[in-house]
Amino acid sequence: MKLALLVEYDGTHYHGFQRQAPEHEPTVQGVLEGAVERISQKHTSVIGAGRTDSGVHASGQVVHCQVESRLKPEDWQRALNAVLPADIAVRRVAQVADDFHARYSALARSYRYTVLNDRWPSPLRERYMYRVGQPLDVGALHQACAVLLGEHDFRAFGRSPRDSQSGEQHSCVRLMLAAGCWGNEGAGVVSFDFTANGFLTGMVRRLVGTLLLVGWGHLDVDGFAQILASRNEAHPGASVPACGLCLTQVSYPPEMVIWSEA
Amino acid sequence: MKLALLVEYDGTHYHGFQRQAPEHEPTVQGVLEGAVERISQKHTSVIGAGRTDSGVHASGQVVHCQVESRLKPEDWQRALNAVLPADIAVRRVAQVADDFHARYSALARSYRYTVLNDRWPSPLRERYMYRVGQPLDVGALHQACAVLLGEHDFRAFGRSPRDSQSGEQHSCVRLMLAAGCWGNEGAGVVSFDFTANGFLTGMVRRLVGTLLLVGWGHLDVDGFAQILASRNEAHPGASVPACGLCLTQVSYPPEMVIWSEA
Repeated sequence: MKLALLVEYDGTHYHGFQRQAPEHEPTVQGVLEGAVERISQKHTSVIGAGRTDSGVHASGQVVHCQVESRLKPEDWQRALNAVLPADIAVRRVAQVADDFHARYSALARSYRYTVLNDRWPSPLRERYMYRVGQPLDVGALHQACAVLLGEHDFRAFGRSPRDSQSGEQHSCVRLMLAAGCWGNEGAGVVSFDFTANGFLTGMVRRLVGTLLLVGWGHLDVDGFAQILASRNEAHPGASVPACGLCLTQVSYPPEMVIWSEA
Repeated sequence: MKLALLVEYDGTHYHGFQRQAPEHEPTVQGVLEGAVERISQKHTSVIGAGRTDSGVHASGQVVHCQVESRLKPEDWQRALNAVLPADIAVRRVAQVADDFHARYSALARSYRYTVLNDRWPSPLRERYMYRVGQPLDVGALHQACAVLLGEHDFRAFGRSPRDSQSGEQHSCVRLMLAAGCWGNEGAGVVSFDFTANGFLTGMVRRLVGTLLLVGWGHLDVDGFAQILASRNEAHPGASVPACGLCLTQVSYPPEMVIWSEA
């Protein structure tokens, strides 16, 4: 039978989701495949919806794999969680039809980038947030995020993941379905949420790096819109660190995946 | 001059706050003293308000130390944060009078214990929470917490920290000023907050371990009150893990400590 798994992981110690060749660096995909193989005693590939980079976290990654039906889906979940390391867990499980594909069936993916706006270090929060000291204008950030909505060529903020495989240039046009910035001024936590039909490699981290310039008043919303329109990677705003990024959701047509209960 | 420092730390990799003899295990106090000495080039002792156990975190630990006045308090904060490791930080600083003592001047200490009530592992939350699968009755837990309010001999839940030093038995009477349990049913996060004039060694973790029995319906509120009244450590309820515990605040008479701004 074919299973879809909703996977949460702390990416701190992983060289990203995707299995590498050579295999000397641990990857989330490699660890998941090892766990399935340990239970099934059979070589199995695990395909993920989002190829998160090194150090990026996920609370809502989705993967699929073909497994024997001797165990029920929830028994698979229990067995996998028993053998997985503490930084990777299967949160939900679903039996899916044979034509389900974690990557190609996905309607959209959502990422959250979390910034801690605080002058001083905060050890209990910096594992999953990127700290910046200079105060951010959350209103301006939210306005700049609205520029991203709709269909755009996002080449200014990343590369098509297929380019690195084929060497050819592929389309960088993506449909941004939601983009916003929310700040809890008191606690100093500022979150950026993005939902799109797909993301370019490094896109969220490069977007946030440039948006921070808007938050600090070094760039206005029009200037940000011009950078997007330029389709040119050579512009101000560095990529922000991986630790603040989390793949929060992958959505599918509702009839395709019916997740197990909490 | 004498400085008070408000210190936050991720206790995961420390053998508790207090410097040990022999010194082969890293402690928060040892690292703080090393940082002050690196700046002042002088042996300095750093005294903490709460002697947190191995693996326990703090968002509001307070320490004091005597330093030379060549640097202003905020320069000390900046210099200390520059040399401290990423899991310990100075969040606020205050110049205090010579009679200030982080431990003896404290009016009260507050601890929070955070439980994740979820059937399945959650890697992004379990660093700072203790996960229990069986559903908890938060209303019953809150009611049981109210039993703790006021002055009690808490011997059933811990030992006087002085006993281990002197070998003698000291008073286990403490004044509980606030005690409650709050649950966010949706997210499955259940927090216990305790404020008292002082805590026995291991007291919060043993209290929560016994309270969980009330949350699961294995013990009623009267039974919990009887355990408190028994002043006997031999009762059901194991100590819960250190990772869920955090020293959140130490309070002083307001004129004694005026913290630097955020």
